[in-house]
Amino acid sequence: MDYRKEKLIITVALTGNVPTKEMNPHTPITIEEIVDDIIRCREVGASVAHIHVRDEEGKPTCDRELYKRVLDELKKRDCGIITQLSTGARGGGNTTEWRGQMLDLNAEMASLSTGSSNFTTQVNANSFELIEELASKMYENNIKPEIEVFDLGMIDNAKYLVKKGVLKPPLQFNLVMNVRGSVSGTPRNLLHMVESLPESSTFTVSGIGPSQLPMLTMSILLGGHTRTGLEDTILYDKGVLATNVMLIERVVRIAKELGREIATPDEARDILGLK
Amino acid sequence: MDYRKEKLIITVALTGNVPTKEMNPHTPITIEEIVDDIIRCREVGASVAHIHVRDEEGKPTCDRELYKRVLDELKKRDCGIITQLSTGARGGGNTTEWRGQMLDLNAEMASLSTGSSNFTTQVNANSFELIEELASKMYENNIKPEIEVFDLGMIDNAKYLVKKGVLKPPLQFNLVMNVRGSVSGTPRNLLHMVESLPESSTFTVSGIGPSQLPMLTMSILLGGHTRTGLEDTILYDKGVLATNVMLIERVVRIAKELGREIATPDEARDILGLK
Repeated sequence: MDYRKEKLIITVALTGNVPTKEMNPHTPITIEEIVDDIIRCREVGASVAHIHVRDEEGKPTCDRELYKRVLDELKKRDCGIITQLSTGARGGGNTTEWRGQMLDLNAEMASLSTGSSNFTTQVNANSFELIEELASKMYENNIKPEIEVFDLGMIDNAKYLVKKGVLKPPLQFNLVMNVRGSVSGTPRNLLHMVESLPESSTFTVSGIGPSQLPMLTMSILLGGHTRTGLEDTILYDKGVLATNVMLIERVVRIAKELGREIATPDEARDILGLK
Repeated sequence: MDYRKEKLIITVALTGNVPTKEMNPHTPITIEEIVDDIIRCREVGASVAHIHVRDEEGKPTCDRELYKRVLDELKKRDCGIITQLSTGARGGGNTTEWRGQMLDLNAEMASLSTGSSNFTTQVNANSFELIEELASKMYENNIKPEIEVFDLGMIDNAKYLVKKGVLKPPLQFNLVMNVRGSVSGTPRNLLHMVESLPESSTFTVSGIGPSQLPMLTMSILLGGHTRTGLEDTILYDKGVLATNVMLIERVVRIAKELGREIATPDEARDILGLK
């Protein structure tokens, strides 16, 4: 298939759980900063916002009220971007109740890891029980899961969960390459993982740290989509701090050189099968 | 390299944490059963014994005293097999103290997972902190770790731990293929993983359940070694319960047809660099 046939969805992962103002002063932490940054990123080409929130001390949290304020504010400002809420394992607690507390909000997507791996200082713990409970809550609320894959086996797990009826194809994957403790971000690994996806899937690629450019560019060439943002790399280049807008703008330029057009949020909704 | 150049090390994984007498009455559970089975497996070609112990109720445990009794009995009966103690995450507790309590015993090897993944009903949780503590205790006691790899990223983690000085090459890997919750046991995945190993490594392959024959045979053809036993498959074939001896004997027959000679324990010590 011609990799240029489908327009490119660019997801912005603005905040994550790790970056701080000390690491990069452009990290959006407050509700206002997050919303302003999403709107700027939408203007330069992002069609999906992968959202994390922080508490008053700047620490990661799953606090439903904070997510609600982000979503309300985006609606008020008529942003139009696809909203994707994080249910990741580093949001301050590891029960379904805590990690899924925001899944009754009016968002279109949410992240869902289909297995466990390591982070530097903790286990990225996602038992099958927790995965099934989170998935069930997402579907009940008409939220499409994005399967966050940190290692090859998580693709096999997703296939198993489809067989069990827990996940409903077509699936949307995000291949998170090069997190320390998980799969490394080599072209060989990415190709192997893409070739392992169930047919009919769509996929996005995140390239953490120095793997950012090769992983995202390869994804564009394989007909996949791209995620970028300060969650994935706080540097634009060696010694150059990034902003979310700078990272999006670079992906847009590369995609244009390679002949991939950029999807609007509504075009992305069609590609991802969002209602 | 000619895959027949190096003799084949056969590891027997006799008991594991999952099989019960109800599932397969040949599962060795008591100290006496375990020791008797190891001796029989040695006689038919196994050169390494991967040992788990069970408590009085048959439940998995890391109880040092039980491991000591197995090792003492093997020594008394002059078995000569290489002893490899399990430090796996399903032995009834998840602290370094519990999982590593037997590492001061006089064994030659111990298992060490270099990352986290899923089992069916729990997370296979191995944080970097725990890995480093277990590795350190192994080296202090002149025990060679066997890196138990449940997914591709655990190979990357092992490379990282070599760079950090936690692991000392040459490494010995066991590629555990087809555990539910971890990487699936396809020839394509196995080839990718073998090609991802650090140079100078040795490796063994476990094929869980129905992946047993293709995975082990492929390992023989790739110059790797093989692990078998009731821990990996309770069936010899559809509807036919296995014994550890039957499983070893089949590997021996396949290896001979394919021109790989079987290593004695002393030859295996040379291949694995055990002192």
